Amino acid sequence: MKSKLKTNYMAATVMLVAAGSMFGTVAYAQEMGESTEMQMDQEIERSKILTDTGFFGVFATYKLNSDYYQKGSAERRGAVDEVLSVVEDHMDNVLVDAYLTRGLSAKSDYMLRVHAYDLQTAQDFMNDFSNTRFGMHSEVTENLTGITKSLNYITKEESSDLNAALTSTSYSGEEPRYSIVVPVKKSAEWWNMSEEERLEEMETHTEPTLAYLPNVKRKLYHSTGLADTDFITYFETNDLEAFNNLMLSLAQVPENLHHDRWGDPTILSTIQPIGNVVETLSAVK
Amino acid sequence: MKSKLKTNYMAATVMLVAAGSMFGTVAYAQEMGESTEMQMDQEIERSKILTDTGFFGVFATYKLNSDYYQKGSAERRGAVDEVLSVVEDHMDNVLVDAYLTRGLSAKSDYMLRVHAYDLQTAQDFMNDFSNTRFGMHSEVTENLTGITKSLNYITKEESSDLNAALTSTSYSGEEPRYSIVVPVKKSAEWWNMSEEERLEEMETHTEPTLAYLPNVKRKLYHSTGLADTDFITYFETNDLEAFNNLMLSLAQVPENLHHDRWGDPTILSTIQPIGNVVETLSAVK
Amino acid sequence: MKSKLKTNYMAATVMLVAAGSMFGTVAYAQEMGESTEMQMDQEIERSKILTDTGFFGVFATYKLNSDYYQKGSAERRGAVDEVLSVVEDHMDNVLVDAYLTRGLSAKSDYMLRVHAYDLQTAQDFMNDFSNTRFGMHSEVTENLTGITKSLNYITKEESSDLNAALTSTSYSGEEPRYSIVVPVKKSAEWWNMSEEERLEEMETHTEPTLAYLPNVKRKLYHSTGLADTDFITYFETNDLEAFNNLMLSLAQVPENLHHDRWGDPTILSTIQPIGNVVETLSAVK
Amino acid sequence: MKSKLKTNYMAATVMLVAAGSMFGTVAYAQEMGESTEMQMDQEIERSKILTDTGFFGVFATYKLNSDYYQKGSAERRGAVDEVLSVVEDHMDNVLVDAYLTRGLSAKSDYMLRVHAYDLQTAQDFMNDFSNTRFGMHSEVTENLTGITKSLNYITKEESSDLNAALTSTSYSGEEPRYSIVVPVKKSAEWWNMSEEERLEEMETHTEPTLAYLPNVKRKLYHSTGLADTDFITYFETNDLEAFNNLMLSLAQVPENLHHDRWGDPTILSTIQPIGNVVETLSAVK
Amino acid sequence: MKSKLKTNYMAATVMLVAAGSMFGTVAYAQEMGESTEMQMDQEIERSKILTDTGFFGVFATYKLNSDYYQKGSAERRGAVDEVLSVVEDHMDNVLVDAYLTRGLSAKSDYMLRVHAYDLQTAQDFMNDFSNTRFGMHSEVTENLTGITKSLNYITKEESSDLNAALTSTSYSGEEPRYSIVVPVKKSAEWWNMSEEERLEEMETHTEPTLAYLPNVKRKLYHSTGLADTDFITYFETNDLEAFNNLMLSLAQVPENLHHDRWGDPTILSTIQPIGNVVETLSAVK
Repeated sequence: MKSKLKTNYMAATVMLVAAGSMFGTVAYAQEMGESTEMQMDQEIERSKILTDTGFFGVFATYKLNSDYYQKGSAERRGAVDEVLSVVEDHMDNVLVDAYLTRGLSAKSDYMLRVHAYDLQTAQDFMNDFSNTRFGMHSEVTENLTGITKSLNYITKEESSDLNAALTSTSYSGEEPRYSIVVPVKKSAEWWNMSEEERLEEMETHTEPTLAYLPNVKRKLYHSTGLADTDFITYFETNDLEAFNNLMLSLAQVPENLHHDRWGDPTILSTIQPIGNVVETLSAVK
Repeated sequence: MKSKLKTNYMAATVMLVAAGSMFGTVAYAQEMGESTEMQMDQEIERSKILTDTGFFGVFATYKLNSDYYQKGSAERRGAVDEVLSVVEDHMDNVLVDAYLTRGLSAKSDYMLRVHAYDLQTAQDFMNDFSNTRFGMHSEVTENLTGITKSLNYITKEESSDLNAALTSTSYSGEEPRYSIVVPVKKSAEWWNMSEEERLEEMETHTEPTLAYLPNVKRKLYHSTGLADTDFITYFETNDLEAFNNLMLSLAQVPENLHHDRWGDPTILSTIQPIGNVVETLSAVK
Repeated sequence: MKSKLKTNYMAATVMLVAAGSMFGTVAYAQEMGESTEMQMDQEIERSKILTDTGFFGVFATYKLNSDYYQKGSAERRGAVDEVLSVVEDHMDNVLVDAYLTRGLSAKSDYMLRVHAYDLQTAQDFMNDFSNTRFGMHSEVTENLTGITKSLNYITKEESSDLNAALTSTSYSGEEPRYSIVVPVKKSAEWWNMSEEERLEEMETHTEPTLAYLPNVKRKLYHSTGLADTDFITYFETNDLEAFNNLMLSLAQVPENLHHDRWGDPTILSTIQPIGNVVETLSAVK
Repeated sequence: MKSKLKTNYMAATVMLVAAGSMFGTVAYAQEMGESTEMQMDQEIERSKILTDTGFFGVFATYKLNSDYYQKGSAERRGAVDEVLSVVEDHMDNVLVDAYLTRGLSAKSDYMLRVHAYDLQTAQDFMNDFSNTRFGMHSEVTENLTGITKSLNYITKEESSDLNAALTSTSYSGEEPRYSIVVPVKKSAEWWNMSEEERLEEMETHTEPTLAYLPNVKRKLYHSTGLADTDFITYFETNDLEAFNNLMLSLAQVPENLHHDRWGDPTILSTIQPIGNVVETLSAVK
Repeated sequence: MKSKLKTNYMAATVMLVAAGSMFGTVAYAQEMGESTEMQMDQEIERSKILTDTGFFGVFATYKLNSDYYQKGSAERRGAVDEVLSVVEDHMDNVLVDAYLTRGLSAKSDYMLRVHAYDLQTAQDFMNDFSNTRFGMHSEVTENLTGITKSLNYITKEESSDLNAALTSTSYSGEEPRYSIVVPVKKSAEWWNMSEEERLEEMETHTEPTLAYLPNVKRKLYHSTGLADTDFITYFETNDLEAFNNLMLSLAQVPENLHHDRWGDPTILSTIQPIGNVVETLSAVK
């Protein structure tokens, strides 16, 4: 029973598709269809949570204490099952994705993304996870909470052509292996611009991104007042040079003049089943 | 006797109502009435301390050392009673509220809010708390002190319509499960504006907040010279999307141009009885 | 002999009076008189060091390592006498005041202020203190050195009315229980203003502070080149709301536009005999 | 077999030549030829990876935990072979260069530069390295990922004279013993300038650097969106005063007005075989 | 033999004279003569290295781990000889000066200044020092490398009167007991000023410093590209109030408007033989 779940999880998590609403993209039913084929009993929940508005996304990065490695390898080996068991216990309420950041990010070894309709159930999971042996040796180094909301700028009503362009193309690259999380905080000057001015800037921002729809998946979370950032922008790609070019094109539009925070940290990672992440970091592979 | 207190505390703390004076709101007798129904022998003190001016609020966030988990579970289990006993010892002088931040804030696992008429009695409690086994393994990561004062801008005299609007509506949502603390520091330019200019900005600031009176409770503490912040703004809500919208509306008024600090940290937590907080973090539930 | 000193110290330190030269105040013989009545064999030295110019003030804040509490309580109990003995050894050269910051400041548990005519003797004391068991478990979190100098702006010659106002009123509140230390760094633009412009700003700065002479004691140390701050401003009060109002009035004058640092950290504490500080933090009371 | 590799590695790594593309320099076949003479079975890969575009460079700095030295010297001695063995295991996929930063950089003891065509293979190496005894006691203090791309400003087409000047001179100094890594982040204002304006600034930037082509080797990695920096500039030299003068000349052109980050950290090190680095830091030499 | 060296070192290091080239001062043969009288077999090297250009100065500050004090006092006592022995081993290549910062600087307990013609030999010393028992328990908290160069502004040719004034007066105070290190980073705007403008500013900067030539010794190291600072300014004095006044006079000239970094940290210390520093911090005196 447990081993079935383990396999299930490892397979399912790799399949994760983050339908993009960032830059004004809507959820792509088609993309979802692709990924849900390989997901099992949670497939409905996953597809819903990734397209619905009004649910929470909690991003947390962790660094392992060096004393974890003082434990015997048998104990470290046991950490994998213990973590998988906690994930299983909470699977009716939260959807957990895992990322290996070690080697790519200075401030963490791994990242969790937890989706939930009720933030308290996400916190419940986080606490049970922290109380595993693996969690007890992990220090949280970043922790950001956001909510999904419907599109605010590039809507059918306000910007119909761009909206059409965004929705007519979908991701067609290989299964993404990499994820990048970039917190975004806009300046007070930005928020004091009129709605029309901000719409115009976001249209200028959106145009150069259209070319990257086939290469880079995107998802947006709103965080003003819930964290020291306004947005959590989440990307998946298999083509990091394309992603670098996408970010350069976003650097070159006037909206960039209104960033108080853009990254800091930029969290680059590989998308991995949570069992793999724990195994790799436990040095028991 | 002790077990009675334990239950009492757990129940009473959940009932906490923070009558808002932030954004110019006055204390709502009505709200207080709702909450005090379920509070017992301290009810008068709690209702008074939450509406009076001239008392202190000390906010402290703590992070547990990982070596806490090297202790046996029996010893960790004993931590709950030890903490409750310290709270009991000081209950005539201070009012203690607890919050679970783990999973929602990177820099802490829990937060305490301590109210007292005499700051030294709050410090006495903090020291006795720090000398419990649980406290000895907790590192303070933020510590802010503020005083409550009467309204400074949106008064009956200076801004009667807004004052009336603020006092005519009160919180009507479900019992709030979430708290958000946001330190605020205004720029030197702000403080060098005339009283009239600042009043005008605060009126513009207050208007969009009226819509959120039923969803979000608010309380304000003054900290200039007592901490590296001018204000501690404290919120309770059960509707985090409404809170996100409230904060977005506050980002969009000119007063936001005068923030040297707005958050940093933004402390998001669930409101919990102190016994629950210690129990959850002690991994003995 | 030792116990006599202990009592002496505990009593004497509480009696500390910091005659203010900040904001242009001169030393108040009268205040000194009040406090010296209760001081014994050191009284001349204390009164001189607190009014003289050309002596050093070293401020250091400390945080106890959590492993201190792994020591047995007998060993921790011995820490008090060991510290008192070091203070006694250096009493001919340095004057030591202690402050309990735990519960009021995130970055420290206690603060020492050490006065000396020769900075090296202050360092000698600091090193002997650091080599006690208590000191070995204390990490320095802030360390600022300043010198006392004669008045630079509000002098009898340059600003006679204000100088008269400052010297005609003295502290008349209750024995201060609280201390606040606020480091101040002025901008390069400030220092490039003419002497006359700066005098004018300091007069505007001084006027609103006159009202607080009876409530708040003040003392100023000059630190340019000796620390990453220009001034260490030191306050004692028993009325923290008055202090909050004083600081607000200082925020509202143009001089505030020239602060590169004002606080950061603001160190709020209670004034305590050093024996009490060590005892409280050793959890052996 | 292993000892052969060890020697090979130690020799080969010292021979490293970083053909410069920074400041618009192209890869120098000639320089490569010089260095590849002494490299053996990896020579094709090294020469290709150092001139190709589209491969990744991961820079990571590490600090040893002080508890590493609690291990016996035999165990520390074993660390060298363990690390060399991991490098050997990955040699088909990644090229690893090592640098000793201790004594020259506050935040680290050593640095690794890992080149790979597939970033995931670089991460695989980093994880296996981190799981060695030496790695388990090393904390990552900086970790930056970049991609090599073809020249963007000083091309044959856009700036033919400068391009010719850059390609007509190559490094002719002694084998470089020192490396300097300087992360560069340009301002939003820079990125919002037109392509022509930026070209002009880069030409002004390039001119004074021509004189240093014989003394300083350079290589450029692009990092926008992959790290909190836009570029990783990598230098090798044996003449640090020349390098200081080169950097001063770059400080004096207008492009410097558009740096949000230039260094921070500046990572100065000696180029060393990885075996030497581990041996020196293990205190077993 | 060893004990002779020990005494020699202790004496010699106190005699250190840093001939100033900062603020355009040239090396004072006369000062050197004073100090070299008491130096023995290294005297030529010391006098040369302190006046030559083109040699390196490495400044490193260290903080002792609290676990150092868990070692027995015998072991800590042995640390002194072990460190002196490492200094002796490297005395042909490097010149080591030591400073006690504990009690005067928050971020360190001691500082080393290492002079060498070849930076790699300085690093070799730093590594051997770090591998002593004392070094293994020391964490580097700042580490800055600079080069000495000939005067750049106040030369005989460009500014003959000021140059004459600088060279006609030399230090005549008591043997300096205090050292202050102040890193300086100039803004991009400064570096983009013309050579003439910068010369003019440096003349204005130099004038008020003439008065302090008899009280404060100065030495300048150039660090652009070698560290995150442009200059390391090093001072020795026995009159800290004079130094405070000197720094105030430098704050009041327009050049100060172009400081991106001035201090941060300002490192105040007493100049001590390295044996004394280790002994004091080992608590075995």
